[in-house]
Amino acid sequence: MPSTYRRLKHVVFGRPLPSERLEHERLNKKTALAVLSSDAISSVAYATDQILFVLGGAIGLAAVNYVFGISAVIVGLLVLVGLSYRQTVFAYPNGGGSYTVARENLGVMPGLIAAAALLTDYILTVAVSISGGVAAITSAYPSLTPHTVLLCCLSIILLATVNLRGVRESGAAFSIPTYAFIFMMLALLITGAYRTWGGHELAPLTAALKIDPASARSHPGMSPITGFALFYLLLRGFAEGCAAMTGTEAISNGVMAFKAPAQKNAAITLGWMVAILAAFFLGVSFLAQHYQVMPTTSETVLSILGRHVFGGGPLYYALQYSTFAVLVLAANTAFADFPRLAGILAHDRYMPRQLAARGDRLAFSNGIVSLALVALLLVWMFHGDTNALVPLYAIGVFVCFTLSQAGMVAHWRKTREPGWIWKAFLNGIGAVATGVVSIIQLVTKFTSGGWVIAVIIPLIILLLRKIHRHYEEFAAEIRFTGQSPIHPLHHTVIVPVNSITKATSGALVYATTISDEVVAVYVEVDPRDTARIESEWEAWDIGVPLEVVKSPYRSILKPLVEYVENLRMVTPGELVTIVVPEIVPKRWWEHLLHNKTALYIRTAFLFKPNVVVTAIPYLVGHAYRLREWMDHDEDLDSAEPDDDATIRHDSAS
Amino acid sequence: MPSTYRRLKHVVFGRPLPSERLEHERLNKKTALAVLSSDAISSVAYATDQILFVLGGAIGLAAVNYVFGISAVIVGLLVLVGLSYRQTVFAYPNGGGSYTVARENLGVMPGLIAAAALLTDYILTVAVSISGGVAAITSAYPSLTPHTVLLCCLSIILLATVNLRGVRESGAAFSIPTYAFIFMMLALLITGAYRTWGGHELAPLTAALKIDPASARSHPGMSPITGFALFYLLLRGFAEGCAAMTGTEAISNGVMAFKAPAQKNAAITLGWMVAILAAFFLGVSFLAQHYQVMPTTSETVLSILGRHVFGGGPLYYALQYSTFAVLVLAANTAFADFPRLAGILAHDRYMPRQLAARGDRLAFSNGIVSLALVALLLVWMFHGDTNALVPLYAIGVFVCFTLSQAGMVAHWRKTREPGWIWKAFLNGIGAVATGVVSIIQLVTKFTSGGWVIAVIIPLIILLLRKIHRHYEEFAAEIRFTGQSPIHPLHHTVIVPVNSITKATSGALVYATTISDEVVAVYVEVDPRDTARIESEWEAWDIGVPLEVVKSPYRSILKPLVEYVENLRMVTPGELVTIVVPEIVPKRWWEHLLHNKTALYIRTAFLFKPNVVVTAIPYLVGHAYRLREWMDHDEDLDSAEPDDDATIRHDSAS
Repeated sequence: MPSTYRRLKHVVFGRPLPSERLEHERLNKKTALAVLSSDAISSVAYATDQILFVLGGAIGLAAVNYVFGISAVIVGLLVLVGLSYRQTVFAYPNGGGSYTVARENLGVMPGLIAAAALLTDYILTVAVSISGGVAAITSAYPSLTPHTVLLCCLSIILLATVNLRGVRESGAAFSIPTYAFIFMMLALLITGAYRTWGGHELAPLTAALKIDPASARSHPGMSPITGFALFYLLLRGFAEGCAAMTGTEAISNGVMAFKAPAQKNAAITLGWMVAILAAFFLGVSFLAQHYQVMPTTSETVLSILGRHVFGGGPLYYALQYSTFAVLVLAANTAFADFPRLAGILAHDRYMPRQLAARGDRLAFSNGIVSLALVALLLVWMFHGDTNALVPLYAIGVFVCFTLSQAGMVAHWRKTREPGWIWKAFLNGIGAVATGVVSIIQLVTKFTSGGWVIAVIIPLIILLLRKIHRHYEEFAAEIRFTGQSPIHPLHHTVIVPVNSITKATSGALVYATTISDEVVAVYVEVDPRDTARIESEWEAWDIGVPLEVVKSPYRSILKPLVEYVENLRMVTPGELVTIVVPEIVPKRWWEHLLHNKTALYIRTAFLFKPNVVVTAIPYLVGHAYRLREWMDHDEDLDSAEPDDDATIRHDSAS
Repeated sequence: MPSTYRRLKHVVFGRPLPSERLEHERLNKKTALAVLSSDAISSVAYATDQILFVLGGAIGLAAVNYVFGISAVIVGLLVLVGLSYRQTVFAYPNGGGSYTVARENLGVMPGLIAAAALLTDYILTVAVSISGGVAAITSAYPSLTPHTVLLCCLSIILLATVNLRGVRESGAAFSIPTYAFIFMMLALLITGAYRTWGGHELAPLTAALKIDPASARSHPGMSPITGFALFYLLLRGFAEGCAAMTGTEAISNGVMAFKAPAQKNAAITLGWMVAILAAFFLGVSFLAQHYQVMPTTSETVLSILGRHVFGGGPLYYALQYSTFAVLVLAANTAFADFPRLAGILAHDRYMPRQLAARGDRLAFSNGIVSLALVALLLVWMFHGDTNALVPLYAIGVFVCFTLSQAGMVAHWRKTREPGWIWKAFLNGIGAVATGVVSIIQLVTKFTSGGWVIAVIIPLIILLLRKIHRHYEEFAAEIRFTGQSPIHPLHHTVIVPVNSITKATSGALVYATTISDEVVAVYVEVDPRDTARIESEWEAWDIGVPLEVVKSPYRSILKPLVEYVENLRMVTPGELVTIVVPEIVPKRWWEHLLHNKTALYIRTAFLFKPNVVVTAIPYLVGHAYRLREWMDHDEDLDSAEPDDDATIRHDSAS
């Protein structure tokens, strides 16, 4: 019966792997780039859109004039952060997540802030990436738009399933779409460059495209914005565009997932990733500015560019499919990192310890399932709308960047290894820059959703601390301080008896095995039945006394509880075991036909001092007898009067 | 904590009563009339309507010319059945329900048919009476009609609650509305008679009332019906009108609820009941014919008569309120009888044994709750429409009448007490008459819902037999045939250990108490932890060996199961107890923070031969220590090296 389930589980999630194979689950550089960089690289599918949306809402089509400049500033920041994380890769070979770095170097509270921000961002990574990926599909096939939420949910469930199978299979499965996206982006940018400078120039899109004025938020009769208002507007565009930088920390978190030499491989992969992301982001923003592309609520910048540059056709659709694929898989970064962080937090007693257990498949199954559920909830609540989710997104990421870089500065000050001043300086610059950006993020996005993050992060911190306090108190309470020997106690066993059956006999065999002092107790509900059971008991003559307890209110439990309490009054400190036969029927509906007496007795005595309740399962209707001693009376009839003959192993199996 | 719940339960359901007070719970004649006759007497609120509906659908307003005649025939049958049941009252002092009488005298199958029919009818009694009562209210206040289902459900829940308190309180609470209804009916009939014969005649209603032709199903241009068609139509009217006789058996079922002399009191009460029901039914039908009343889907005959005879005003509303009250309380007959029958069936092993247990409150709580739930379902399915429910109703009642009377004939033949021939003759006449009516019921109502009963009753019989077979097989399997003495077994105790805590120490104290052969087992998930636990164990030095079992797949359960199975290979027939500490946190959410290891181990070993799993609850976060021995190491530090001093009762509570 359980084997069918197990077989099904193996088909869906793969066969369980022994711990020694953990080493072989590690990734080479090419696979690691696909798995760990998809989040960062795929940001180009929505980052440019975000800048244009914010600027377009205020200054209409004039927005396209600023998009390349803003993107260039962001790329500068990206390079700075990339260099900073390169140092973390070498300093933390076991994975230098923001939580670890901040907690080790800055203290518990900064660590918890980083943890809360990271947890929030992993969830948003899944929700934003999946909805962005589905937007690539609905841009190509507008008729699918009504099914957005369904498509998002199916993608999340698919991802969770793949991840429950384990990391390496994920890597193999994910390499193809990531490299397909890189290839299609290169095709787009090269074709665009060729058309621009190779003498095959296309007309700007403003003339050809019918832009929906409402959705692009452009106001034709708008007066030009200047001075501080323009500065603040560009700042908002910059803050939204920073969504391009999300995922940059993934490689430094996952150093231990690389094949040896892990740190060197991780650093090289990090370099590739930053280069690819910078090139793509600048390229897309350049083309958007060059062709004056304005996104609408129903079509993304990348889709518009693809249609224009490729002129539609197979190449355009290949771009959209690969965008969908890489964004769905970007969510995979979170599926790798969220359970890992939850596991670290659980190990540090800030999260339920179940999350620290590796599943059969070397993946942190519980964390994967939790992440998928919360992401499904988010997608359902926001109707799979990327533009509604992104404002919440980058804030937490930059909080983590800041805490992580600041922690690295403290780290270098402590270690003082050769060249530490230069390293501390680099991380210090990174910390200040990302710190300033964090503030910009929070201020400019506060009213458009940022406040939610400002509420949720403290709540998560409170929860983590509450869990921690419980585990600390629990550990203190359960701590075994003495070194005293273990002494057996004085022990009485009580067997509640209703009639003489094999189940009763089995319970009595067990009772006499565990103690010399056994009492059978009969709760008298109807006095007319008492004489019968008493005479049957006397006839049985097994040397166990039968006590009759009256129950004027027809309750079975209360007289039993009172009986045990009286027993303890007579002999204080007495250990009492109540042995109850528990009927386990074969078919589910038969459970309805039997009282759950064992369960009720267990519950009634849960809070009573020094009472242990032991249920002896008696399986009804099974072809074989599981507890052989319950049948021993029948065996005896045909056997020699030999005590040991009452138990025969061959009658089981 | 449980005492708050208990106090609440006492407030809602009353204090529990000892068995010896059962006698005092019995009813005097006046209260018994109110409790046991409300079903029968209240039938006048819908029986006349049913005749007029059926006839009116075929011959329009001409229907009123036949209603008194049909009612007179039904009253004749009622008197016959009443006399028959009077004999049952004297023959069965402990309650002669149809099931008991049929099973004892005719055999198991007729008994089960009667039981199935009765169970169906009790449920329909609740549904029909409640929806009829609510119809009395909506007749008076048509604006409440949309809330019909809600009103029905609230009434059922109220009734169930009152019944869970016990019979006598019910009686006291129910006397007032029943007598109020009797008083208002007398007022209606006397006023009607005074106006008819006292010279204050009113005009027939046909002139004044606007009858909805669709709802009264009258077709103005209808050709007159004659011959067999008319005969069959009158038969259908008769069958529907027999709904007036439902509930007649209640008193003979409930003889033991009467104060001594129970049989004489019951017989007198039965006479009153038949007289009142006959007078009211004839009176209402007479007035309906006299004033040419035709019911509509939105107003009952009684409501129309009340408006007309009382001329509206307070008397009319008093009639409607008392009708509502008596019908809601008519359902009480079922609430008294259904659990009683279920209890008898459970005692005979045809129903789950839980239904046989008297609750704290001398009421069969489980049966009451089941009945309320099924009735709620029915009312919800039929939208609280009396006219849809009544066709299903009387069929089962007459099947029971027939089986009961036939059983009585067999009873008299067996006992042959003085005058038995006359008694058998009377019951024989009753059996034949009600048997014929049963067939008329089934034939004339078959297409209008009667077929449902023809399907449900066999299904219930199947279910009862299936339950019976399970209990028979169970009893045969568990039967203890030998008289052999009880022998203790060879016994090994295994304590799974993860780290050395008070919970572990408590489990080990228990283990050494119940056996001399105790092994602690450590499941190694990470080899790095093994050395630590082994050295700690050696330092503790308690004389219990620690075995390390490797778990390459990181599962805790599988290596443990394999270890126990290997142990049993070495010593076949070995009894193994696994003692597991079970962490019981104080607050509900803290349960999420601890693995349910004890539960998993219990489940894993449920089907393993000769293995018993005992959980030692360790309560965390409680102000006092419940299992004192778990703290004994701390006591030892300050106590003399005296073994008995390790257990001190005064350290608890």
